[in-house]
Amino acid sequence: MTDMTREDVTAMILTAKRQAGLTWEGIAEAIGMSPVWTHSAAMGMNAMPSDKAEALTAHLALPQEAALVLQESPTKVWTQAVPTDPCIYRLYEIVGVYGPTIKALIHEKFGDGIMSAIDFDMQISRVENPKGDRVKIEMSGKYLSYNAW
Amino acid sequence: MTDMTREDVTAMILTAKRQAGLTWEGIAEAIGMSPVWTHSAAMGMNAMPSDKAEALTAHLALPQEAALVLQESPTKVWTQAVPTDPCIYRLYEIVGVYGPTIKALIHEKFGDGIMSAIDFDMQISRVENPKGDRVKIEMSGKYLSYNAW
Amino acid sequence: MTDMTREDVTAMILTAKRQAGLTWEGIAEAIGMSPVWTHSAAMGMNAMPSDKAEALTAHLALPQEAALVLQESPTKVWTQAVPTDPCIYRLYEIVGVYGPTIKALIHEKFGDGIMSAIDFDMQISRVENPKGDRVKIEMSGKYLSYNAW
Amino acid sequence: MTDMTREDVTAMILTAKRQAGLTWEGIAEAIGMSPVWTHSAAMGMNAMPSDKAEALTAHLALPQEAALVLQESPTKVWTQAVPTDPCIYRLYEIVGVYGPTIKALIHEKFGDGIMSAIDFDMQISRVENPKGDRVKIEMSGKYLSYNAW
Amino acid sequence: MTDMTREDVTAMILTAKRQAGLTWEGIAEAIGMSPVWTHSAAMGMNAMPSDKAEALTAHLALPQEAALVLQESPTKVWTQAVPTDPCIYRLYEIVGVYGPTIKALIHEKFGDGIMSAIDFDMQISRVENPKGDRVKIEMSGKYLSYNAW
Amino acid sequence: MTDMTREDVTAMILTAKRQAGLTWEGIAEAIGMSPVWTHSAAMGMNAMPSDKAEALTAHLALPQEAALVLQESPTKVWTQAVPTDPCIYRLYEIVGVYGPTIKALIHEKFGDGIMSAIDFDMQISRVENPKGDRVKIEMSGKYLSYNAW
Amino acid sequence: MTDMTREDVTAMILTAKRQAGLTWEGIAEAIGMSPVWTHSAAMGMNAMPSDKAEALTAHLALPQEAALVLQESPTKVWTQAVPTDPCIYRLYEIVGVYGPTIKALIHEKFGDGIMSAIDFDMQISRVENPKGDRVKIEMSGKYLSYNAW
Amino acid sequence: MTDMTREDVTAMILTAKRQAGLTWEGIAEAIGMSPVWTHSAAMGMNAMPSDKAEALTAHLALPQEAALVLQESPTKVWTQAVPTDPCIYRLYEIVGVYGPTIKALIHEKFGDGIMSAIDFDMQISRVENPKGDRVKIEMSGKYLSYNAW
Amino acid sequence: MTDMTREDVTAMILTAKRQAGLTWEGIAEAIGMSPVWTHSAAMGMNAMPSDKAEALTAHLALPQEAALVLQESPTKVWTQAVPTDPCIYRLYEIVGVYGPTIKALIHEKFGDGIMSAIDFDMQISRVENPKGDRVKIEMSGKYLSYNAW
Amino acid sequence: MTDMTREDVTAMILTAKRQAGLTWEGIAEAIGMSPVWTHSAAMGMNAMPSDKAEALTAHLALPQEAALVLQESPTKVWTQAVPTDPCIYRLYEIVGVYGPTIKALIHEKFGDGIMSAIDFDMQISRVENPKGDRVKIEMSGKYLSYNAW
Repeated sequence: MTDMTREDVTAMILTAKRQAGLTWEGIAEAIGMSPVWTHSAAMGMNAMPSDKAEALTAHLALPQEAALVLQESPTKVWTQAVPTDPCIYRLYEIVGVYGPTIKALIHEKFGDGIMSAIDFDMQISRVENPKGDRVKIEMSGKYLSYNAW
Repeated sequence: MTDMTREDVTAMILTAKRQAGLTWEGIAEAIGMSPVWTHSAAMGMNAMPSDKAEALTAHLALPQEAALVLQESPTKVWTQAVPTDPCIYRLYEIVGVYGPTIKALIHEKFGDGIMSAIDFDMQISRVENPKGDRVKIEMSGKYLSYNAW
Repeated sequence: MTDMTREDVTAMILTAKRQAGLTWEGIAEAIGMSPVWTHSAAMGMNAMPSDKAEALTAHLALPQEAALVLQESPTKVWTQAVPTDPCIYRLYEIVGVYGPTIKALIHEKFGDGIMSAIDFDMQISRVENPKGDRVKIEMSGKYLSYNAW
Repeated sequence: MTDMTREDVTAMILTAKRQAGLTWEGIAEAIGMSPVWTHSAAMGMNAMPSDKAEALTAHLALPQEAALVLQESPTKVWTQAVPTDPCIYRLYEIVGVYGPTIKALIHEKFGDGIMSAIDFDMQISRVENPKGDRVKIEMSGKYLSYNAW
Repeated sequence: MTDMTREDVTAMILTAKRQAGLTWEGIAEAIGMSPVWTHSAAMGMNAMPSDKAEALTAHLALPQEAALVLQESPTKVWTQAVPTDPCIYRLYEIVGVYGPTIKALIHEKFGDGIMSAIDFDMQISRVENPKGDRVKIEMSGKYLSYNAW
Repeated sequence: MTDMTREDVTAMILTAKRQAGLTWEGIAEAIGMSPVWTHSAAMGMNAMPSDKAEALTAHLALPQEAALVLQESPTKVWTQAVPTDPCIYRLYEIVGVYGPTIKALIHEKFGDGIMSAIDFDMQISRVENPKGDRVKIEMSGKYLSYNAW
Repeated sequence: MTDMTREDVTAMILTAKRQAGLTWEGIAEAIGMSPVWTHSAAMGMNAMPSDKAEALTAHLALPQEAALVLQESPTKVWTQAVPTDPCIYRLYEIVGVYGPTIKALIHEKFGDGIMSAIDFDMQISRVENPKGDRVKIEMSGKYLSYNAW
Repeated sequence: MTDMTREDVTAMILTAKRQAGLTWEGIAEAIGMSPVWTHSAAMGMNAMPSDKAEALTAHLALPQEAALVLQESPTKVWTQAVPTDPCIYRLYEIVGVYGPTIKALIHEKFGDGIMSAIDFDMQISRVENPKGDRVKIEMSGKYLSYNAW
Repeated sequence: MTDMTREDVTAMILTAKRQAGLTWEGIAEAIGMSPVWTHSAAMGMNAMPSDKAEALTAHLALPQEAALVLQESPTKVWTQAVPTDPCIYRLYEIVGVYGPTIKALIHEKFGDGIMSAIDFDMQISRVENPKGDRVKIEMSGKYLSYNAW
Repeated sequence: MTDMTREDVTAMILTAKRQAGLTWEGIAEAIGMSPVWTHSAAMGMNAMPSDKAEALTAHLALPQEAALVLQESPTKVWTQAVPTDPCIYRLYEIVGVYGPTIKALIHEKFGDGIMSAIDFDMQISRVENPKGDRVKIEMSGKYLSYNAW
């Protein structure tokens, strides 16, 4: 009895993707989900509902056991409190610079509470621009109000 | 000769805003800028062009010297590598969970590069939703391609 | 024009409580809220609705301005990533030892998601026991399910 | 002579559970203990009395040596001072936000002392609620009074 | 209404001790407690029962309010995770070098549990020795057994 | 030529001890040393004199090479600046809470200096007590006076 | 199907370079790029355009798959927040000592903005000097102006 | 007798510069030194020779004592191991990404050694470019060879 | 009654030295001690015997109370785990690079033990050298042998 | 083609030394270098000139390839910012306690600059002493003066 881990399945997905020359956009479309969610579930940062796990496994011709692993609740771990990769660091920097501003405006528009990172979705798109194309990131999270009791 | 610091001006703005019962949205409209940028400049996280600095100073009836201070390049400092306030922490968590996904999709859509956090803008809005209203954050940054030489 | 800060109001509350020989339980009862929430709002870890802020201000004979400060959204800050006070450290230790267990059982009972720390309440009580009385802590938070999109 | 480690036994338990389609609740019932304690002992965060270790080993058809390993005093280790998984982080956040409140109320109800994390137990349950079901966590620990000598 | 803080009282005690040429041993004897406990309570690391707080206040001729402050439950804080003072570092080093040994021997002599740091006392004495006098530290803490439930 | 490491020898000792059903107290007695020192040397936190290394090797029927390894000066390493295991953490907490007190009393009894952690010994014993048995830890280290030159 | 990783390709390049007695300058010339960029791409800190990846692979007689790996966007990771190697530490020290100066002079010459580390290039050369030859590092990055919106 | 500190002198210089509408380039020219060195000495990151200290004091009409303070060897301190200001962070990022490359090329051109950060100088200039002007940083440090003895 | 602190006395010494144009070497000679010890005691890193404290106080014309403060056992604190000042960092670097070597050679020459940092002295001198004068640091500490018991 | 790493060569040297019963002093003498430098080069903290690398390889009968590896510029890495081994920690403590003193005396004797840790050498010796033999460490590094430009 050998166990397949999350890391095994992530590696299988990356290899299958590279060998078949697929894109995340294409894989996402094949399983009927968004590219952001599809990639994060493939990386082990989200659990897949069973139909999506099976659709992904079939699309990439992975072993059947992989579909079970993809449905498990992963433990989300990142090891760099401050990320070093420049592409990810810029996002961290935005949180440092604009975090208090986002907080102030949420409070102004909603009251005392937060934007949920659980009941949450995100889209990434390319916006053409004559001065240089732009990356657009749209986040949407449910407003959660603090409880008083 | 007494010097007015960034912190002094931020405190004056917050007091004037509270006493006059203003909102960030209202202040931003008065100076013809977005609420996100207006708040971050008021907090000392962005420098103001001279016309905006004077408009803000006039709108809030601050001393003239404040307009000069608002135009200086601030040193952007945050002291918590991992923010503790729940509203800001959720943003940090999103970077931890979805950072590698954003990176992968930028690379897929643009090539090897990043989204700029300097040539950058952001909007925050409230989206009505029968299951609970949602916070929408839209970020847009210029794509910067790595150089090879 | 002098500004009253959160720290000022917390200090005023502590002084008034000590001088009048009050208890948190008594103060909470006077404003019709729970002791846990009342103490945390007094410490600047929760914002007060206006009626509760005014009730507290009246009960403790604080200046009127304090009621406004108590209604603002505080920035929640703790400076020790690992708390040193033994009473608080034991709670941290419980998260370290039992955190993965709580996660596993939430997943077993609910699916992939978390217990909210925002839509959340807590009670603390004393349970008599012949082998030594026990502290009982009851936490209740809304289950939030991860989104797939 | 090969040695079986704690990690080996934890892996065996997880595999046997997955293959037999068991739940922690079911396993706990089979050995006559609570689900919280059973899971934490299986993870190597608590030592098992010999009868419970043998009951678990028999129930999951593990090798006999596993029962010995489960009885040893484990060294409790967690490697993230601030946990990243959102489900566990929310518990950490609760300690940060409400730790001083819990301390103040323990002192008010008992005197100068702490809630033990050793002579301690915990239950987790699902509470139905029309606005969304809630996670309930009940902790109970012996009050320990500081010594003066 | 001015408030006296823990830090104020600690400073008063140190000044009174220096000016009267007292020793910790002498102060401890005067209030009928041990030198270790007396010093730690004076430093704000332990709360004093009311009779001892009053005895100390009387012995050092401190203002009456100090006796109240000394009875409050202090929040125990140390700011250096690894202490730099050589005298204290050596104790830290002993925990690093001998911690696993102490744990193993407690398990051998008592079973799975710990030595309490709450129901705890300590003595420090000087032991004459022809090769150089020795510091003797004796710690005694109640054995607490882990709970299974 | 294969090399035997400190870690190999520690593992051999633990296995031999478990298989033979020995105790640290028994092993220590067999080689004529204290249990604390014997355990710490077995863990690689102290070097053994050759006669003790050979006595231990003979007593546990380890290969001859092990006796050489046990005589080497180990590099003492601990990887957690703040230990997480509750049994060891309590010792760390004692250093945090009582460290300044121990320092003050050493200075009062001896002058400006420290207790050596090198010319040092320790005993651990069980003290019966009707309110619950107690762990007793006795440390003795040579007083070292600071040099002035 | 075996996967070749970035680390594998870096190791192959280092081995081929050592065995053929090549220099970075020579390799860079062979592929028509600068030594700084060539070394950093070989180390996995930059992605190679396909023609350069193939030129490098051919020059060093690496397997064909290596050319594909060299074109992927690497995740840039460094694990020492403060580097220990003296040669790299001196660069870190220059950032600590002169960072605020570089910032002030960029602001004086350009306005509020930064030097890009993405649209960036660097040369390293040896400058003869009778008092001892000098290392010359020339960095050039596009000036990016902060956005106001 | 009041003492003037480094911080006092830095503040005086900044105020005098702002009030007289000077630039670093202009101040540097007035004392016959480079702008980089002049700014860093003004910030307390370098000591000034007496003639330069007096020239600066005279040029800015500072009190005579300032010239003495500017000649003292400052203790160079930066408090952020990883700088947060984006302009300075990009320099830190360059060290992280290109540090090993700079080391490798120094070794290739010089042998085993480093570039001195003490016998060191730097220039910053603006380079016009139709695609956007560029910041140019030129560093020059004496090569120091490791000693063998 | 005002209290003079260690920091007060250090500041007085520095001011008196600067105003009288003294050197550490001169001050040390005046009190009959070495410059290293004299400076470190003045900085609050060593306690002074009463005759030396009085000699220093007299030599610098400090108030009488200063002599008492200089005799107290200071708590030795440094706040940078890794020092940033280049002159001190180089010493830290030497410990990182040569620490294991010093340990190995102490073990080879003495056996299992350490060099004391308490029964310790140090001299610093200038050695003329045609290739550039050299700093010579001589440390001498008592060898302390690990205890076996 | 298999590659021999620095770690491989270090392990070979340690094994050969142990098996042949050699000392660092003896090995150093055999290759005509000092024990400190010889040990540090063997540990991978210094590169060897070719003649010394070959002498060492011949003396210890290591494979020829080892001589090449010993000549490469190593990346100097230590992973504990604060070392835990007591013998090395004492050196770290000396830097913490006496670092500012060494800096002050270098400035007094030489001017504004540092002692080089690159153009540097060290000797360790045993000094007999009736009160207990002493470890003597002599460091010598070239004085480097800060540049003004």
